[in-house]
Amino acid sequence: MRLIIFLLLIIPQFILAQSPQTLSVRKYREQNEHAIITEYMSFLSIPNLAADTVNMKKNASMIMEMMKKRGIKNVQLLQAKTPGVAPAVYGESLVPGAKETIVFYAHYDGQPTDPSKWYTGLSPFQPQLTNGPLYNKAAFIPLPAANTAFDPQWRIYARGASDDKAGVISILNAFAAINATGQKPSVNIKFFFEGEEEAGSDHLAEIFDANKTLLASDLWIICDGPVHQSGKKEVVFGVRGDTHVEITVFASKRPLHSGHYGNWAPNPAMELSQLLASMKKEDGEVIIKGFYDDVKPLTEQEKKAIAAIPPVEDQMKKELGFIEEERKGMGIAESTNWPSLNINGLQSANVGKLSANVIPTTAIASIDLRLVVGNDWQKQQQKVADHIISKGYYIVENEPTDEERSKYSKIAKLSRSGGYNAQKTPMDLPIAQRVIAAVQSTTTEPLVLLPTAGGSLPLFIFDKHLGAKTITVPVANHDNNQHAENENIRIKNLWDGMETMAALMLMK
Amino acid sequence: MRLIIFLLLIIPQFILAQSPQTLSVRKYREQNEHAIITEYMSFLSIPNLAADTVNMKKNASMIMEMMKKRGIKNVQLLQAKTPGVAPAVYGESLVPGAKETIVFYAHYDGQPTDPSKWYTGLSPFQPQLTNGPLYNKAAFIPLPAANTAFDPQWRIYARGASDDKAGVISILNAFAAINATGQKPSVNIKFFFEGEEEAGSDHLAEIFDANKTLLASDLWIICDGPVHQSGKKEVVFGVRGDTHVEITVFASKRPLHSGHYGNWAPNPAMELSQLLASMKKEDGEVIIKGFYDDVKPLTEQEKKAIAAIPPVEDQMKKELGFIEEERKGMGIAESTNWPSLNINGLQSANVGKLSANVIPTTAIASIDLRLVVGNDWQKQQQKVADHIISKGYYIVENEPTDEERSKYSKIAKLSRSGGYNAQKTPMDLPIAQRVIAAVQSTTTEPLVLLPTAGGSLPLFIFDKHLGAKTITVPVANHDNNQHAENENIRIKNLWDGMETMAALMLMK
Repeated sequence: MRLIIFLLLIIPQFILAQSPQTLSVRKYREQNEHAIITEYMSFLSIPNLAADTVNMKKNASMIMEMMKKRGIKNVQLLQAKTPGVAPAVYGESLVPGAKETIVFYAHYDGQPTDPSKWYTGLSPFQPQLTNGPLYNKAAFIPLPAANTAFDPQWRIYARGASDDKAGVISILNAFAAINATGQKPSVNIKFFFEGEEEAGSDHLAEIFDANKTLLASDLWIICDGPVHQSGKKEVVFGVRGDTHVEITVFASKRPLHSGHYGNWAPNPAMELSQLLASMKKEDGEVIIKGFYDDVKPLTEQEKKAIAAIPPVEDQMKKELGFIEEERKGMGIAESTNWPSLNINGLQSANVGKLSANVIPTTAIASIDLRLVVGNDWQKQQQKVADHIISKGYYIVENEPTDEERSKYSKIAKLSRSGGYNAQKTPMDLPIAQRVIAAVQSTTTEPLVLLPTAGGSLPLFIFDKHLGAKTITVPVANHDNNQHAENENIRIKNLWDGMETMAALMLMK
Repeated sequence: MRLIIFLLLIIPQFILAQSPQTLSVRKYREQNEHAIITEYMSFLSIPNLAADTVNMKKNASMIMEMMKKRGIKNVQLLQAKTPGVAPAVYGESLVPGAKETIVFYAHYDGQPTDPSKWYTGLSPFQPQLTNGPLYNKAAFIPLPAANTAFDPQWRIYARGASDDKAGVISILNAFAAINATGQKPSVNIKFFFEGEEEAGSDHLAEIFDANKTLLASDLWIICDGPVHQSGKKEVVFGVRGDTHVEITVFASKRPLHSGHYGNWAPNPAMELSQLLASMKKEDGEVIIKGFYDDVKPLTEQEKKAIAAIPPVEDQMKKELGFIEEERKGMGIAESTNWPSLNINGLQSANVGKLSANVIPTTAIASIDLRLVVGNDWQKQQQKVADHIISKGYYIVENEPTDEERSKYSKIAKLSRSGGYNAQKTPMDLPIAQRVIAAVQSTTTEPLVLLPTAGGSLPLFIFDKHLGAKTITVPVANHDNNQHAENENIRIKNLWDGMETMAALMLMK
């Protein structure tokens, strides 16, 4: 087994070839580019914040239509009991005599976003075609004529364009291509498109529990996230877990004149800064007690896979405009195989033109905690709580009362979100090897094999509630601005994604 | 001289009496409360942000009208040459044979404010009467009938209600009361109402230079700021200086997914927190190199005056909802006689519902630096700059270029505002003693004598450009929310202010 991986890692490029199946899918796509993109832009124009019940129903309806149009059977919504939860969309294509079942997963909801932060002329739900990345000063372009090819370097800008409606559309068009070219899947195929992944997948377990038989399978292919920064295709065997805490430090009940009280009244922005600074060394190591204690070390095989990843750090630094990484001396793949503590946002009174000569009343930090195998998300939150307490704070769950204010000199509110643990599928399982071989059959470039992706998906739920194995095969470009303003997908990544998903549906 | 101060400090309450002049002013006021408040609320309804040229003209016009109505002569606008600068309003009342001239100063512009932060039902420029402080759950009340007395505990909520239209209205009504009751000022009185104090008084020197003869005087009475927290009347002999810096820390050029890059990409919010935390010890002492080096120590007399101030710290802590001061072990007056470094605001990406799983691109802190006699404002800014450099930062004045990003691992933009130094008038000057005696003649409570107020006014300009002495005599309540939302004035403070200003106009 290890030999196979070793061979894949060192395989020279000239013996890697694209399979006839891949070329056949490509030909189908070349003849249908305009229809595929038009349909996709229409899909992207439906707002997809998980909490936006009305629009999430529209998204789900459009997905059902697209599935039926492609001959997918038993199409249905899988609803949670709680009202207002965006449904999962299910469908299947069973192959008589097939002995294995693979479920293809993507999610159709997106992260919250502030429209005012998008580039001038962009709006999250008015998809826009450009002739390249806007950070390189590309221009907006109209849709080309119906029988013209799309330049694969063009991009589509919209919320969800890469994360993760790109997954939905790659999977559905891969299936369409297989059917249209007369190829026959080797396995039963099931489709599962989630509607609340970016909102924390709070009802996924409930949906799984209610549909155990329907969702029985040998493997889930999770189509989400970006491919490697080198542009090489990637197979990912695990994800980090994720949870959040928000810290609010309280000082005076009312804002004070910074002249009349500056030096005397406590400043919550300074106190929060001191508290945050106490959590991390200058070299990026988290110094909260026990932060790394539960981490399960990487296996030798995983270490080798990481070592074989083509280095992209210099290229990335140049592209992103900095020269020193946070965890000094670690590469991207190595550092993201550790748990992390990351400040997502800070707020206290105002800066810039609205800034006034005040001592603010509160200061807030939003923090996300990424987890690796071995970490427990609630335990990780508790480590942060214990650290805050160790710095002399009294922790409240709501606004402090007058009595609490009269008792404790340092008060912080800690809001804990839900969360989930990391999950990993061993790289040496036979089915994992077959996934690697299938993806490799679509490209002449060696693959990047990643033990754990930096990003998070609630894959532990798949294991716990369905006993399912998961392997992630992403399709989006790495510079897609996922989770932020100006999210985008490069057209070539959609085309590559179709070929990859098709190869997995035809997996030997 | 020192004996007089000593006597004033220890004078027992029973021998302090209110002068006949004060009682006479009071009687006039009691007969005119409705007209005074109605006029004041109309004055407060004109927006007064210094940059709002149109409304600042309306404010100046109304002040001129109010002055003329009271028989003040030679009323005129003193304009800076730069267009768009709010004018100062001047007027005078010269007394034949008077040997001294006193200028009464207040400013009519206010701090910027965010209307959405005001209590529900309040708006900065729609003055609202309440039956007490809203933080004690007082209610909105309508204006009482024309011949009904105002409860002195009622308040008016509006931007500028205390800072510093209260100064303008106290001075003008004191003058009206003296005239109406047939009293004769002992000195020539000049009036000077500034229109850009909250914007930094950038053109005050220019106006002074152009009007040296018109503004010649023996003393300026600065009517601005709150009285002592004990409610006792206050005479202030100096003010802190003030200047600002805004620090922006830069990291990745585009926001990054905190999963895929968390641990690897630098986080500007954490870097800013570490930088800010490095500026101050937990006990509130600023540890920027040389921060306190230039401070001119207090004289023995000043130390005694501070020691004689009635302690209000426990009352204030209870009112403000905290139990530990920033500079541990120091009272308000002692700590505000030191320079300070205060964070006015923090911002990086978003918190709360808009928070997303990103690594932000920048993090910003707005900082104000208060100064005492001995400090130079530009030198104080430079100490902060040097500190940032000592922490490994390269300082830019604009967005960093790609070249700068490729050279320096830590980059911060430092925006330096204008500023001015502290100013102090010696407490033992004869005219200072006469000011103390005049204010003392209005109250049976001993005064609070403060060597330096915590707040700032550009009083050094008065000295440098007019060779003028300045003494500050504030009128507003201490809990006026000056510079913040929900600014307000307690009616009693307006009444007391009138009596104080009248006594100074009748000063012996």
